[in-house]
Formats: sequence, structure tokens, C-alpha cells
Amino acid sequence: MVPRYSRPDMVAIWTPEARFKIWFEIEAHATDALAELGVVPKEAAAAIWEKGAFEVDRIDEIERETKHDVIAFLTNVAEHVGPEARFMHQGMTSSDVLDTCLAVQLAKASDILIADLDALLVVLERRAREHKMTPTIGRSHGIHAEPVTFGLKLAQAHAEFARNRARLVAAREDVATCAISGAVGTFANIDPFVEEYVAGKLGLSVEPVSTQVIPRDRHAMFFATLGVIASSIERLATEVRHLQRTEVLEAEEFFSPGQKGSSAMPHKRNPVLTENLTGLARMVRGYVTPAMENVALWHERDISHSSVERYIGPDATITLDFALARLTGVMDKLVVYPERMLKNLNKMGGLVHSQRVLLALTQAGVSREDAYRLVQRNAMKVWDSDGALSLLELLKADPEVTLSDAELEDKFDLGYHLKHVDTIFARVFGAA
Amino acid sequence: MVPRYSRPDMVAIWTPEARFKIWFEIEAHATDALAELGVVPKEAAAAIWEKGAFEVDRIDEIERETKHDVIAFLTNVAEHVGPEARFMHQGMTSSDVLDTCLAVQLAKASDILIADLDALLVVLERRAREHKMTPTIGRSHGIHAEPVTFGLKLAQAHAEFARNRARLVAAREDVATCAISGAVGTFANIDPFVEEYVAGKLGLSVEPVSTQVIPRDRHAMFFATLGVIASSIERLATEVRHLQRTEVLEAEEFFSPGQKGSSAMPHKRNPVLTENLTGLARMVRGYVTPAMENVALWHERDISHSSVERYIGPDATITLDFALARLTGVMDKLVVYPERMLKNLNKMGGLVHSQRVLLALTQAGVSREDAYRLVQRNAMKVWDSDGALSLLELLKADPEVTLSDAELEDKFDLGYHLKHVDTIFARVFGAA
Amino acid sequence: MVPRYSRPDMVAIWTPEARFKIWFEIEAHATDALAELGVVPKEAAAAIWEKGAFEVDRIDEIERETKHDVIAFLTNVAEHVGPEARFMHQGMTSSDVLDTCLAVQLAKASDILIADLDALLVVLERRAREHKMTPTIGRSHGIHAEPVTFGLKLAQAHAEFARNRARLVAAREDVATCAISGAVGTFANIDPFVEEYVAGKLGLSVEPVSTQVIPRDRHAMFFATLGVIASSIERLATEVRHLQRTEVLEAEEFFSPGQKGSSAMPHKRNPVLTENLTGLARMVRGYVTPAMENVALWHERDISHSSVERYIGPDATITLDFALARLTGVMDKLVVYPERMLKNLNKMGGLVHSQRVLLALTQAGVSREDAYRLVQRNAMKVWDSDGALSLLELLKADPEVTLSDAELEDKFDLGYHLKHVDTIFARVFGAA
Amino acid sequence: MVPRYSRPDMVAIWTPEARFKIWFEIEAHATDALAELGVVPKEAAAAIWEKGAFEVDRIDEIERETKHDVIAFLTNVAEHVGPEARFMHQGMTSSDVLDTCLAVQLAKASDILIADLDALLVVLERRAREHKMTPTIGRSHGIHAEPVTFGLKLAQAHAEFARNRARLVAAREDVATCAISGAVGTFANIDPFVEEYVAGKLGLSVEPVSTQVIPRDRHAMFFATLGVIASSIERLATEVRHLQRTEVLEAEEFFSPGQKGSSAMPHKRNPVLTENLTGLARMVRGYVTPAMENVALWHERDISHSSVERYIGPDATITLDFALARLTGVMDKLVVYPERMLKNLNKMGGLVHSQRVLLALTQAGVSREDAYRLVQRNAMKVWDSDGALSLLELLKADPEVTLSDAELEDKFDLGYHLKHVDTIFARVFGAA
Repeated sequence: MVPRYSRPDMVAIWTPEARFKIWFEIEAHATDALAELGVVPKEAAAAIWEKGAFEVDRIDEIERETKHDVIAFLTNVAEHVGPEARFMHQGMTSSDVLDTCLAVQLAKASDILIADLDALLVVLERRAREHKMTPTIGRSHGIHAEPVTFGLKLAQAHAEFARNRARLVAAREDVATCAISGAVGTFANIDPFVEEYVAGKLGLSVEPVSTQVIPRDRHAMFFATLGVIASSIERLATEVRHLQRTEVLEAEEFFSPGQKGSSAMPHKRNPVLTENLTGLARMVRGYVTPAMENVALWHERDISHSSVERYIGPDATITLDFALARLTGVMDKLVVYPERMLKNLNKMGGLVHSQRVLLALTQAGVSREDAYRLVQRNAMKVWDSDGALSLLELLKADPEVTLSDAELEDKFDLGYHLKHVDTIFARVFGAA
Repeated sequence: MVPRYSRPDMVAIWTPEARFKIWFEIEAHATDALAELGVVPKEAAAAIWEKGAFEVDRIDEIERETKHDVIAFLTNVAEHVGPEARFMHQGMTSSDVLDTCLAVQLAKASDILIADLDALLVVLERRAREHKMTPTIGRSHGIHAEPVTFGLKLAQAHAEFARNRARLVAAREDVATCAISGAVGTFANIDPFVEEYVAGKLGLSVEPVSTQVIPRDRHAMFFATLGVIASSIERLATEVRHLQRTEVLEAEEFFSPGQKGSSAMPHKRNPVLTENLTGLARMVRGYVTPAMENVALWHERDISHSSVERYIGPDATITLDFALARLTGVMDKLVVYPERMLKNLNKMGGLVHSQRVLLALTQAGVSREDAYRLVQRNAMKVWDSDGALSLLELLKADPEVTLSDAELEDKFDLGYHLKHVDTIFARVFGAA
Repeated sequence: MVPRYSRPDMVAIWTPEARFKIWFEIEAHATDALAELGVVPKEAAAAIWEKGAFEVDRIDEIERETKHDVIAFLTNVAEHVGPEARFMHQGMTSSDVLDTCLAVQLAKASDILIADLDALLVVLERRAREHKMTPTIGRSHGIHAEPVTFGLKLAQAHAEFARNRARLVAAREDVATCAISGAVGTFANIDPFVEEYVAGKLGLSVEPVSTQVIPRDRHAMFFATLGVIASSIERLATEVRHLQRTEVLEAEEFFSPGQKGSSAMPHKRNPVLTENLTGLARMVRGYVTPAMENVALWHERDISHSSVERYIGPDATITLDFALARLTGVMDKLVVYPERMLKNLNKMGGLVHSQRVLLALTQAGVSREDAYRLVQRNAMKVWDSDGALSLLELLKADPEVTLSDAELEDKFDLGYHLKHVDTIFARVFGAA
Repeated sequence: MVPRYSRPDMVAIWTPEARFKIWFEIEAHATDALAELGVVPKEAAAAIWEKGAFEVDRIDEIERETKHDVIAFLTNVAEHVGPEARFMHQGMTSSDVLDTCLAVQLAKASDILIADLDALLVVLERRAREHKMTPTIGRSHGIHAEPVTFGLKLAQAHAEFARNRARLVAAREDVATCAISGAVGTFANIDPFVEEYVAGKLGLSVEPVSTQVIPRDRHAMFFATLGVIASSIERLATEVRHLQRTEVLEAEEFFSPGQKGSSAMPHKRNPVLTENLTGLARMVRGYVTPAMENVALWHERDISHSSVERYIGPDATITLDFALARLTGVMDKLVVYPERMLKNLNKMGGLVHSQRVLLALTQAGVSREDAYRLVQRNAMKVWDSDGALSLLELLKADPEVTLSDAELEDKFDLGYHLKHVDTIFARVFGAA
């Protein structure tokens, strides 16, 4: 966890206090269920809720001796509850507490991340609608291709993050399970009713079959999903970085008054937020493989997953939360330069219309190969002139090009490219 | 692709022939749709189906000059179709063909993998039911914990692979989209109807908004899902490897007559299939990060993803197909030794029942800490004797242990641990 | 950074205080060099050393406005130094400070890690010599193969970590460079002498050609090397975990008085330290790919690497330091059970000697294939008897086995396998 | 292995024929050594060289029965050699052959890769010297910073690949070891002399202590090094991609006659080679983690590493060889546009000189903060004018800027930035 890439709500999920509070709730709910079954006295269950308390420092102190965190926690709680504390944790194993707690934490983290995605989607839709018809050059390979609109770029991002939202909802469901099944998952010393009861109280589903632990394929899928989301963040961040580069400058991150771009070069305004997002995406992706390596625990469990999760549980969710919020801020305040977009679009002397001419020639009976050759030989002249020559004029002057001047001029119409923007927006955002 | 880790049906999806055949179908269906729209003559569309053909070698030859695979393909097909070939690919871009083809290939690959998972699930259920009540020691940290059944281990694997099946179905849906939207996704030169038409013919859904390409978050999610499945394979393979080790030997891979375990040591029977699966899992996981790095293409696309997909498209699916089939074979023919399981279970002098005694003491009014201490001090003696001493006898002899002999004996009952196996099986497999 | 997996000396390298202190030294030394060149007044350089100071909180406060850390730092220092502070940072760029600082931090971290490796090597050599002739079964595929000694296992680990030490020394050299070359590495506003001067003062070598930054292939190599070391840790940790499993129990992690193995099962003594090391190795490996993705910065630099390094700089070095120290502790105090090793070695009824019989038969004129068949058919009987039958007796009774009883008995000598242990130890540790 | 990303010399190392030929040499040399020791007849050793032969198909056939590749190979060779074949492989284990063979293959692969790097270095030096004084804008964050030369960019690449060469030489040394130490590395049935003899014949060093296998930390380091080299390839490829983008167009990949950039857009000339290199780099990096996961083999070995190496041995080396050769070709034929570089450099109205003015103001007694503010306020006007305004003219007109016109003009001199290019070239290439 790097403080500067952290937001308090997500951090709060991962504090020792928060973790122990969830442990306490699991133990207390479980004792309620045991009381309902008549296994432990109802008074004991009540006493745990009433007198139960813990102190992080005291738990740490006890753990230094026992080298076992759950035992340390139970001992500390017992110091508050008194003799009735012995009814806590009856028939349970540490992992029942630890894994169910992790499920609660990941579910809460998912809720924040889903809210982050929702906020991003709102911004992307707003900016997409704002620039629905702002023409800009579409680029493949970094090379001018044909016109698109800036709104289309954002609609694409919206569709991508909407997919990510659906994936995250599925991943949340995958990890939000409760296991209270005892030392090796057999319910030998605890009735399955307790598991169902606690699951219900915590908003989790029941783990159908656990070993000592909740199986880690669930968590692997969760962190892999975060890795995909991070990759989408990198994609949009990379787009902004490209748009802001000096020679393109079609959009810029908002540059606040007082901000300094460079200690040495006062003229600099750098896309530092999206560069930062690119790096953060690398980190979130870096957590995917450790999560997958955690799956193959030995037999009914080994504890190798635990240290991994102490890192990536907080680090992946906190970093992704921060990154989503930062991306939302960037997109919300992104300064867009439509005139510059148009200027760039036009700078290649009409090359962006080359395909239309190619198709028109084909439809006028020229073979595809000949048409390609005709267009390419004129396009290359324009290309080599750095946009000084005009493709339209060259084509008009080419004796082999059999289209009339009017026909050719018709092929250089920008509106032609934008006629289906409505269709695509309807697909992405539904009917207006 | 490593031939020895490949099966023909999956390999067949990725041959040049298969790829070009899908390209041809995409182009021919698209021309049908264009004919339906009146953009091209119906006779041309018919001619493509009738006379269309291609030769892999010829395409390669043309590509060496043009350095562009789709143009090479179209040129070769045109050699067969004649002048009407110029109506093919009207308004389309190469990626329309390439990406839709990849979608078809990944959907087909998914279908094979789903069938693989189904076959594995059948075997796991059969073996799970067979060993539903075969007692074996549950182990945490590689150390004896409490009894489980071998069927429970397999039920757990079944539940895990059933989850993986659901994930793969979702991942298949994610990648099975069709984009026929032109050079930068604007449908400038091709009506969206063509996309819908081709999608319907190929069993794909329509890509709501493409750039020049289908967005790669879809593929990243797909390959990440394969990585999770591979990790589950590693888990079950690791279990078998552990069970087969000399000192445990509770199960063995089937060892066929004529097979040799070692060139130097004739006595060896090694779990080579599951070791192999462990390695294959590493490879499938290794393809996840490149797939995620493919997401952030520049602007409307760059082609950096293409080389990655030429590797991981075949390699990940072929390897996983092989691994799933191998795992199914291993589990199908796994030689299980129930007597050895029982012998191992009993070898620790009854230590596996220690928790029950702990709980009984607690319920008899002893504090949790005292109960733990009492049991642990006797358990440690048994532990140090390597199972020569009996925990039951030591407890009977311990004056501080206040339970009667009969009460103690009752705590050493194996059946006690298995009473909820039915419950768990019903959760995993449904009602018997 | 996870506090429980952190040691104070390594943590101290990565605190804000430590970082700013290095920044200050870089700036002050650079100003000295500028003074020596006559570019700035000598009094100014002296004033910086005398009056220079900073406060982390104040820097944070200024950074919140400027959004630029180096500018914030310089502003804060200037508050202490007064007007002469304007001579600091002359002709330098932020990355000159940041990257040179990172080089100092990684060099210091390397020194700790090298010391960690040295401590581990000392322990491994001591334990290897202690158990140089302690026979134990060698296992391939987890299956008994032929005898080795426990000392040989440790000598192997020693050789591996000695290689890792050499790799780390090389990696340290790779990252310990100083760049003071200005905004884009041209020394436009600062003489190369300053770089040489500061490098000398800080014990770094000069970066031959920087852009705005020190090239990140250096750091990628560094973190990749940490990933290899982590993998070696995992290897030795896995060995211990195997040796401690109930059925093997040839060695155990030291179990301190008061330690509790399980909240539910008082009999448990688990290899939790080495399991933990397995997880930590996953994390350190997980940082390798982000470090490699950092290499391809755009043009003369982008800042995407920075966030990655804020995580992995501390996380990788702190985690590896902790892991090495923990591994050293585990190996130092590892409880070894030679009797159990011998018992396990003998449990397979002499199967471990099968190869010697095979060779003897071959040398007595039997074809390799026949010899293999003869030995295997007897070995399989022993195998199936779970060690109850004796290979020696079966071979004596096999009429096709033409060796005399005395010849056969000679092949079942344990000492035969250990005759070259001295040779190997001399290779690893040098002459005794 | 993807044929289109493969070159024949590297592919030849990994064919079954090549592998079996190395196996044969290992076995034949080992038998020579055994004959020298008097363990086997000299005639037998001679017979193996004379009559020894193998057929890949026959080996495959035998392996299908034995499921063991080395046994299949030995059986096939024995079919040619006759009864004296029984003296082959005496006291050896399969891994002695397999691992030593892999060492030979990786050493040969390294030699090709080192030659690839040498060829690249030659090209980089030639182009660097050619453009030593070709001014171009240095960019940080994709934003214009200050002038550099194109030769400096290439010198930087040269220094980076020279480091990579040194790393690869070290990695080659790491993997080029020979182990002929028997079933578990004890030399029980084979004298260490054989290992030394074979190592000498094959140009390998002796593995000081092997288990059954050569330890895999060596291979992990090797593949990690390839991953770093791939990352450097990505860096240079990314630079070219940026330089070729339409708005920058300072350099272009050579576009051969007949080549087609787009099936739809005849005007396109795309940086497809460097985009392809970016993807290939992802793949080579993807092989690093599996190689590291291979390190922690169980006990004296398990065979999980083998399948991984069957993929990554060929795939990583073949892909990297192809990538290096492709990069060399790209850089060799790169079309450079110095006029365009100069045009871009000048397009920001002199902003690139802002730092010099800042420094001049500081030295004229203005505080750093005031100087920054003065320059920034004028720079921002130029920035917002898209280069239409001139920084020099604005500064002259700013009453608070106290420098004379002549002083200001002096700060806008391009040559100022290039005065240390010689120094840097001398560092990288040595004295002219």
C-alpha cells in the first residue's frame, strides 16, 4: 500500500481494527447459531455481544507468544467476556474466521470498486454525448486512417468499462462465500446450520464444499478480473497520453493553477496522471499471477496463500480504487480541443478519404488491384509532401482515374463517415 | 505448440486451412448481406460461394510480396472467382475478417474445452461417489489434521471444476463477437446490417462498438479464465503427486504394462502425468499477462496484439485441452488404496481426534486455555513417539483430564467425522 | 509493505526521511561541484551544508499545491537556506535527483541482501557439514530413488545461494549509477564533471548515457534477479515442508514453547514458516514483470515507471530481506531426525539398491533390456508389498538372476552411495 | 514456435534430430571416459561411435510403449550398435543426458543471440554516428522538452544493448554446465571423471553439485535475462512507432515496393515491424515466470519443469532471435527525416529554451520561484498559441524580465545543447 495511491474508504476495509471487527461478528453470529441449536447457552451468546471487545495492541502482544493470530484474538476477547468466552469458536477452525472475513472484505472492496466503475461510466457517457459529433481522426498503427468522433472513442471506453463492471459483479459473487465447516470441512464438530446462519447475517452465500479453507480458485478469478480492469484503465490512459503529446495535442489533462510540470522546464504540461495510471495498471496486473499460484494449496490447505493475500488483498483493491477514481477525474475534467482535432484530421491532404475512392473505382468496374494501385500512387505523393499536396486534386489530374470531378469531390465528405454514430450510440447507451 | 501436448481436434482449429476457411465464410456471408442490401450483384455473391477457393501455399507466396495476409488471401480467392471477386470485402477492413475469425476460433476452442470439463466432471463425480465413504486423513500444512473421505476430496474438485465451467461459458460469451464495421469502426462504407447478418450466420453476437478491432479486454478475460482453470488443474495434480509419494502412497497414477519409470532405477513408478500437468499449468498461466498487455492498443488499434495471439491463441487452448484430457484420464484410472489411507489415518496414535477431546473438556467446564494445554501436552508425547503411543491411553492416564474412560473412548469414533458427508454431496451433486 | 514481513534496517532505507536525506546529499554535493567549477559561489555551497534542512510534513504540504515532489523539496530547503538556495539544482532536472537517489537506495538494499545471503550461506555450510554423512533417501518425483546425505541437500542449497549472491552483486553493480545530466541527458546546463563528482561521493558509477532518466533495463535486471533468489527460497522452503509432513517427518521447523499450531487441533506442529516463505516468493516474483514493463518508457522518459517503483522498490527488497532472514532462522534451528531418515530410507525393502543390481547384471553379460526386466519384476513385488518383502531375498530366489548371493548382498551396501560426498563437498566448500 | 517468427539456425537447435544427436554425443563421450577408466571395454566405446545411429520415428515408436524418451533412444541406438550398446549409459540417469543436452542447446542458442546482439550493435553504432549531430527534440512525457540529437537516442540504445550482451554472456555461463552424476547426484555408479571428461568435450563447465538434475535457478536466470533483453527491444521499437506516427513522422520503417499497408486504405504506411516487436517482447517476457516457477522442484527433482522447457526452450530463444534480427533490419534501413525533426523541434515557438532563460534569470539574481513564474507565464501563452507565438519575443516584451534582448537571444541557441555530444559518444563508443 502506497499512501499517495490510496483512498480512505478502501483503506478502512483493510485495517487491523476492521479485520478484527469482522472476526468478532463472525464469532458472535456463530455463537448465536450455536445457541439456537442448543449447543451453547443463550446467555453466553448474549454475553459475547454485550461484553465482547478487543484491542489491536493486546492481540499483537499475545500473538507474539502464541504465533497464532486467531488464538490471540480469542484470548483477548475472552479477557473482556469472561468465562462464557469458552463457548465462542466451538467446533470452528481458524480458517473459518479468516476466510469468511476475507470474503466480507473482498465483497466490501467490490462494492466500492463497482461504485467507482459506476462513477466512471457516468462521466464517460456525459463526455461521450458532449463530443458525440466532434470529428477527429481515427488512427491505426498511430497513422491517420479515417474520421471518427471523439464521442465514439469515449463510447468505446464506456462499453469496455460496462463489461468490466459486469465481470466484477461476477467476481464479487465468486468470492462472497462463507465457510464455517471446521478443521477439514467436514462439519465434524459444528452443524452446517451455523454456516448458513452466519452466511445469511453477513450477506454471503454458503461455500458448498470447503476443505479447511475456501478454495482459492475463487480468489484467483477475482484478482484476474481486477487485472483485466487495470488493463482497460491502461488503455484509456494511453489514449489520453497520446492525445496530449505535443504534436497531437487534441486533449489535455486538466492542469490546476499552481501545478508545476517540471522543475527545470517551466513550459511543460505533462500527462502525469495518465502516465501514473499506466504504472498502477502494471502493479494490479502483477498481482494476478501470485493469486493464481495460490490455488494449488497442498491437500486440505497449506498457509502459503496467506502472506500473498496480506499483500494483494489491500494492494490490488486499494490501487485499483485509486486508479479508477483518478481516471474518472481525468476524464471528467479532460480539456478537449475540437479545433485541433479538425486541424489534425485535415493535415494529410485528404488521405483519410482514400478508401472511399478505392471503393468507388471498384464499383465503377475497375479491378480491386488496379484501384488500389491507382489510389496508392497518388496517396504516396501526398504522404511524401507531408500533407502539402491534396489527394483530391491529384486524383482529378490522374488520367487513369475515370471518376468525374464531382464524383471525386463527393468522396471527400466528412459527414459520410459519421452517419452511423447514432446507431452505435444506441447500441452502447440505449435509445436516446 | 508442442506436438506431444496437443490433441488433433483442437489443433485443427488453428491450422492455416481452418483459418482461411473461416475467412472465406466471413467474406462470402458478408457479400451475401451486401447483395441483399443491393450494394453488390446477387450473382457475384453466388459466384463467390460457387467458385471461391484458396491454396495456403499460394497465399503465402503472395504475402511474401504484399506483406499483408488478408490482401494475399483476397488476391488468391480472386484468382479462382474471377472479376466478380471485386465485390468481396467491400467496405470492410482486414481486422473485420481477422477479429471475427479469431472469435469463431476461440468459440470453437471454448466448445472443446467445455466438453473437456464436462468429461472431467463426469469422472470426478463417478470417483467421488465411489469413494464417498472411503476414510482418509485430512491434512493441513501437510500435517495430519482430522478424518475426511476421499470422496470429499473429489467432490471438492468437482465443485471447483464446475465453477471453472461456468467461468469458461462466460468467457466464451465474452469473446464470441463479430465486428464488420470498417476501417475505424464507423460503418462508413458498410451497413451495420452486414455485421448483424454475418454474426447470425456464424453464431456470434454483434460487437456493440468496435474501433478497427474488437477490444482486447474480451480476450484478456478469456485467457485469464484459462489461467484460472490451469491453476485448478495444478491443484488436483498436486494432490495426486502428494498421494503417490512413497511414504504416503494412498493413490497412484495408472502404470501401464511396458511403461518404464526410470532408465536407471527399475523399481520406480512416478506420478509423471500429474507432474507434467503442473508444468503445463505454468505455461497456460504464463499466457495471461501477455493477453492483458494486449489490451492497451494505441488509438483505434495497433497490431502488437497480433503476434501475441499467434502464439497464445493456439498454445493456450491446445495446452489446456491436452491438460484437461490428461487430467480426466488420470482421475479416471487413478488407483486408489483405501487400506493404505486407513493405515495412514491411524498412524498418529489417535491424534486426529484431539479436537473432540478439547471440545468435550470445554463443555465439561474446563476453560479453553486449560483444555488446550491438557490435550496438547499429551498430544505432543504421541507426536514425539511417531505414533507408537496412543493418545486415548495417555488421556485416560492423565489425572487432570476429568472425562471418564467411556466418554474419552466415544471421542475416538471415526464415524463421527463423516456424518455430514451426505449433506456436502447433496450440495455438490444435488439430491441423490 | 506488510509490517509483519518487514525488518527495520531495510524499512529505514525507504522512509520519506531517508529519501529526502539522500536528495539533500545529491543536491549539496552537486552544488559543491558547481562551486568547484566556479559556476556558483563557494559560500552558497557551504551554506547549503550548514543551513540546509527539511521537514517531511512541510514538503508534503507544498507538494499538494505544486504537485511536484522535487520542487516541493527544493522550496522547503530554500526556506532554511535562504537566498543562496537558488544555486541548488542548477542545470539539473528532477530525475537527476530521483534516479540517483533510487540508485543509492537500491545499492544500500543490495548490501543488506548480500549480508542476508552471507548469513544464510554460513548457516547452510554449518548444517551441511554437520549432516555431511547423515544418510537419507534421495527422491525423484517424490518417490524413493537412491541414498544421499542430508548434508548433500544442504550443500546443493549452499551452491545455489552462492550463485544467487554472485548474481546480486552483478545486479547491484547494474543499478548503482549516477545521472546528473540535465533535462534530456545532454548536459546542456550542467557540466559532466558534476555527475562524476557526485557519483564519486556517493559510491556510484557514472551513467554513460542517460536520457532524462537512468535507463530502466538496469532496474528490470535487478528485480528479475530478486525474483530468481525468491524462487531459490521457495525451493528450499518446499524441501523443508516436504520433510516435515507427517508421513515423512525427517525434519521440523523449530517449534518454540508457547507456540500454538492450530486453534482447533492441539496436536499440530506445522511448517508455517516455510509455507510463509513460499507465499513471499510468489510476491517477489510478481514484481518482476512490472519492472520489465517499466523499460519501454516513451522517448526520453515518461513517468509511468515511478508509481511502479514506489511499490516494488520497498516491497521487493523488504520482502526478500525478511524472507532470507526467516529462511536463515529456519535452517539454523531446523530440527533434524537422522533416525527417521534412516527408517524411511530402509522402508522400501531395499528397492533403493535396484540400480546397482541392474548394472551388475549388465556387466555379467545380461542385456540391458533383460536386466531391467528381471529387476523390475522383483522390484514391483516389493513395491506392492509396501516394503514388507525384501528385494534382496526375492532376487536371491529368482532363478533367472544369475548373481551369487554374496554378489547380490554386496550390492545392498549404503556406504557405496556415499563414497563421493567428499568430492562434492570439496567442489562446493573448497578443500577441508 | 510460430514459423513466421522463426529463423532456421535457431530452429535447427531445437529439432528432434539435433537433440538426439547431442544425446548421442553425450553418451558416446561418456562411454569413452568409462573406457578410459577401464569400466567398459575400449572396443565398446569405439563401436558406439562407429555403428551408433538413430531414427527419430523409431524412437517415437518405442517411446509410445515405454513412455520414457531416453530409454526409447537407447533402445534404438542399441538396435544399430548391437550387444556392445549395453556399455552405454552405465551408471548414468536420464537427466544426465537431458540436462546436459539442454545446456548444450542453450549455449548454442546463446551464441546465436550474442551474434544477433553484435549485429544490432554494429548497426546502432553506424546509425548513431551518422546522426550524431542531427538535432531533434527530446521529449519527456511525450511533451517537447529540450533538444537532443538523433544520434544520442541511438547511442543510448547502443549502451543498453551492450549491457544486454554482457548480461547474456553471464547467463550463458550460468546455464552451460554438465551433470553426469547419476540417479541422485552422488556419483554412486559413475566416477566424477566422466562428468569432467564430457564437460570438456562439450565445452561446458562441471556442475559442482547436482541432485538428479541441474538446478533450475540457472535456467530461471537465463530466461529472465531474455525477458530483460525483450523489454529493451520493446523500448526501441516503441521509439520508432512514436517517431513514425502521422503527426511526428521523424522516421519511418523502410517500406518495400509492393508492400501494402492496409487492405482498405491505400495511403497507409504503418510501423508494423516495430509493433510486431512490441508483441514479441510480451511473449518473451511471458516465459520468465514459468521459468522461475520451475526452480522449486520437489526433493532431488520432479519432472514438472520438463514440459515448461519443451515450450520455452525453443519459443523464447527462437522468438528473441527473430526479434533481434528484425530490430536490426528495422534500424539498419530506418528512413530518417532530419528536416522534419528540425521542423518539429521549432514548432513550439522556442519553448524548448525555457530552462536556459530560467537559469539566466536565477543567475541574474532573481529567486528561483520568481524566475519560474516569469518564464512559465510567458511559456503558457506560447503553449496555448500552439507555437504561433514566440517565447523569445514575449520575454523581450515582458517588463519584469530583466535580461537584455541580446542576453535573451543568446539563450535560444541550438548549438548550446549539443556541446557535450562528443563526451557522451566517447563514453559509449570509446574515443573516436
